[in-house]
Amino acid sequence: MILYLFGDLMEFSKPRGTRDFLFEEMRERKKVENILRKVFENYGYGEIKTPLFEELSLFTTKSGEQIVEQLYNFKDKSGRELTLRPELTAPIARVYLNELQKTAKPLKLYYFGSCFRYERPQKGRFRQFWQLGCELIGAKSPEGEAEIIAMAEESLNRLGLNEAEIHINHLGIIRELFKEFGINKDIQEKIMILIDKGNKELLVESLNNKEKFDLDKDLIDILIKILNLIGGDEVLHEAHQLIGNYLGVSNELSNFTKFIARLKSFNVKNYTINCSVARGLDYYTGIVFEIYIPSLGAQKQVAGGGSYNLIELFGGEGIESTGFAFGFDRLMNAYQTLNSANSKSNSRSNPGLNNEGNEESVVDIYVAAICDDARSKSFEIAQNLRANDYSVEVDLSRRKFKKLMNAANKLNVKFMIILGEDELLSAKVTIKNMGTGNQELVKIEDLNSYFKDL
Amino acid sequence: MILYLFGDLMEFSKPRGTRDFLFEEMRERKKVENILRKVFENYGYGEIKTPLFEELSLFTTKSGEQIVEQLYNFKDKSGRELTLRPELTAPIARVYLNELQKTAKPLKLYYFGSCFRYERPQKGRFRQFWQLGCELIGAKSPEGEAEIIAMAEESLNRLGLNEAEIHINHLGIIRELFKEFGINKDIQEKIMILIDKGNKELLVESLNNKEKFDLDKDLIDILIKILNLIGGDEVLHEAHQLIGNYLGVSNELSNFTKFIARLKSFNVKNYTINCSVARGLDYYTGIVFEIYIPSLGAQKQVAGGGSYNLIELFGGEGIESTGFAFGFDRLMNAYQTLNSANSKSNSRSNPGLNNEGNEESVVDIYVAAICDDARSKSFEIAQNLRANDYSVEVDLSRRKFKKLMNAANKLNVKFMIILGEDELLSAKVTIKNMGTGNQELVKIEDLNSYFKDL
Repeated sequence: MILYLFGDLMEFSKPRGTRDFLFEEMRERKKVENILRKVFENYGYGEIKTPLFEELSLFTTKSGEQIVEQLYNFKDKSGRELTLRPELTAPIARVYLNELQKTAKPLKLYYFGSCFRYERPQKGRFRQFWQLGCELIGAKSPEGEAEIIAMAEESLNRLGLNEAEIHINHLGIIRELFKEFGINKDIQEKIMILIDKGNKELLVESLNNKEKFDLDKDLIDILIKILNLIGGDEVLHEAHQLIGNYLGVSNELSNFTKFIARLKSFNVKNYTINCSVARGLDYYTGIVFEIYIPSLGAQKQVAGGGSYNLIELFGGEGIESTGFAFGFDRLMNAYQTLNSANSKSNSRSNPGLNNEGNEESVVDIYVAAICDDARSKSFEIAQNLRANDYSVEVDLSRRKFKKLMNAANKLNVKFMIILGEDELLSAKVTIKNMGTGNQELVKIEDLNSYFKDL
Repeated sequence: MILYLFGDLMEFSKPRGTRDFLFEEMRERKKVENILRKVFENYGYGEIKTPLFEELSLFTTKSGEQIVEQLYNFKDKSGRELTLRPELTAPIARVYLNELQKTAKPLKLYYFGSCFRYERPQKGRFRQFWQLGCELIGAKSPEGEAEIIAMAEESLNRLGLNEAEIHINHLGIIRELFKEFGINKDIQEKIMILIDKGNKELLVESLNNKEKFDLDKDLIDILIKILNLIGGDEVLHEAHQLIGNYLGVSNELSNFTKFIARLKSFNVKNYTINCSVARGLDYYTGIVFEIYIPSLGAQKQVAGGGSYNLIELFGGEGIESTGFAFGFDRLMNAYQTLNSANSKSNSRSNPGLNNEGNEESVVDIYVAAICDDARSKSFEIAQNLRANDYSVEVDLSRRKFKKLMNAANKLNVKFMIILGEDELLSAKVTIKNMGTGNQELVKIEDLNSYFKDL
């Protein structure tokens, strides 16, 4: 965008790291959004919406001062320290404490909105990005946790993302071990952050670094063995054997086992027990999970969540909460990549996937007057059909017939209604079925019933 | 929200002038949003979305440097001058020039998103507010302008806001007069801003102020007479007589007359010709209109728009454009105020209005296990119904029967499915119709067909 102002050349463009979404992209995003909304609402979740910006301290309290480097923070004209929100869990906790503490539990809420981070833009990482997520506040685990994961799985299924993998862990087990070996909170969190980074070599090196942690040899040994556990329900048995020596009976492992049994009641089929899923932040307490779509490489993680005590961190009373969020842009990337891969291979295996490309019409009917006298009638016909909820385009530019045909074809309409002088005299119009090419004359008064099965 | 941090007492609240939207409010906003989306899409408009923030200069170019006082502007960490967007027309013009110049015309696009202004919060004015609007780019008037107003009227009708008034003017007429009397651009814009303020006394005083404008007595006289014209089609005739003496034939008045005739082809019934509608900004060229709901007093204006040459202002080639936006928060205020007034008077006159209060269930079915052995089965049943697109709640908190009944009543569910030991043994469940109070036993395998007409 170029502007000549006072003789200078100016150019406007979107801010670095942001995107403009045009027609087809918006339709796809809306479609995915609506599929997910439907699933969340079927599970009894209600939507809430918080402001785009919050007090800066809301996020530094949750995530530490160092997060400010990645924030769009600013002072407003009264000197308030504000920031565009980087995520939605802290705002939701604020709303809970401000307005929902007395509401009957369990409280089920979901949100969809954009968040902001200041970081170097790169493939799949934007400065404005969208999250669609939910919080279940005040429901007893393991049922609540199982229901959340069932909802995540159903969301993926309805989007046709059958290759998604749900990796689940229970942080209580490692925390129990830490406690048994007398590891203090500070060291615990440092180790959890290391685990979350997912670099096994670095992890082993760091755990063995006497100056860094000074850990018991047995703890290092068992930690590394546990973090390597990944697979089906047999992992529970292996974990049991591994930590039995140190803890005797592990309450947390037995909670995890109960939770896995509940997953089956909720008909969840597609899960992997993965003892190396850690999540970064230290307010997670029990179940944690991440969802991966392996074929997407560096962009593979499309969701993350778990059980936490965030509200306690903010000074509220302790209340069990579980939540997760889809990275909506990642999910769209997965949906579009796999969608286009599937349509290329003509796969019919994902019924949730409709190819929206050029196949789908956005406008049903195009009304075209081919002489000036018919123009006024063409608007009346369009208005009448629109009032009956058909999506209708009518020529506003007095174009010739050939151009009208081109316009109707470009919009991929199903029918064209053509009015010329003959039609005006007979109070009929010509209807052309753009799929079959057939034409027929229909009385203007019969148009609504003609299209009733559209 | 209160936080004890290092012994200090901290309290978090939403930033001044912003709002949290909770469940019922969000449902109503979503409902209104979806009604409007449907209308816009029926008219062939496609959605586009732009970033929440833009370069500051995008708005100062359009609206002048003084607008900065009302902006949430800030520097990002690389020193870029950015601002939260105060409105959406300039971003849309930017997108047009960046990406849509070569797309076939007419281009029909709509947007829904939040905007930000820094000003003293007061009743009905918030620092984050929403706009839902559209732009028609490159269609010849008067058809395009008439279609836009038809769409605005249909939107209002579908929301049951039948008392809304659409006030229309054509700025070309006054501009023609200014030209005839040799008034320069600068004075013209000052007078237009005065007219837009709507204070007639101040206007008359200012027009007569020799030091301010030094206008011809005849111009003052005719301006004041024209600005007082308001009413039905007879206003066109009166305007014709008034300005005939000065202009002979007025091209712009004859365009206005053609436009009003087109409004009738588009079946628009509810309009007022009001020659004092001016809009504030100087990029409007032809038709301008504002929509009022008089009973809302100071909040009465719910929409505004017109034809403009904004894209030219930004350095693009001149292209005819018409657009308007609903102030979504004002519209919600109108919808909720009139909705509640109508339901109080038991009026059935607005079919578009459904009272959403406590009457509507959000969740269809509540599944309640009344013994521990039935719990696992209750989850299976819930999952099965959800997979078939019923909205289902299932007890996650192991509550007793009385509490379950309370929870189901609070959610206003239509049916409750009750499972106890008897039911488990017989593979049946008790279904209680919460409307009639009737109960019956239904086989678990028949549940989906039982609810199929729900």
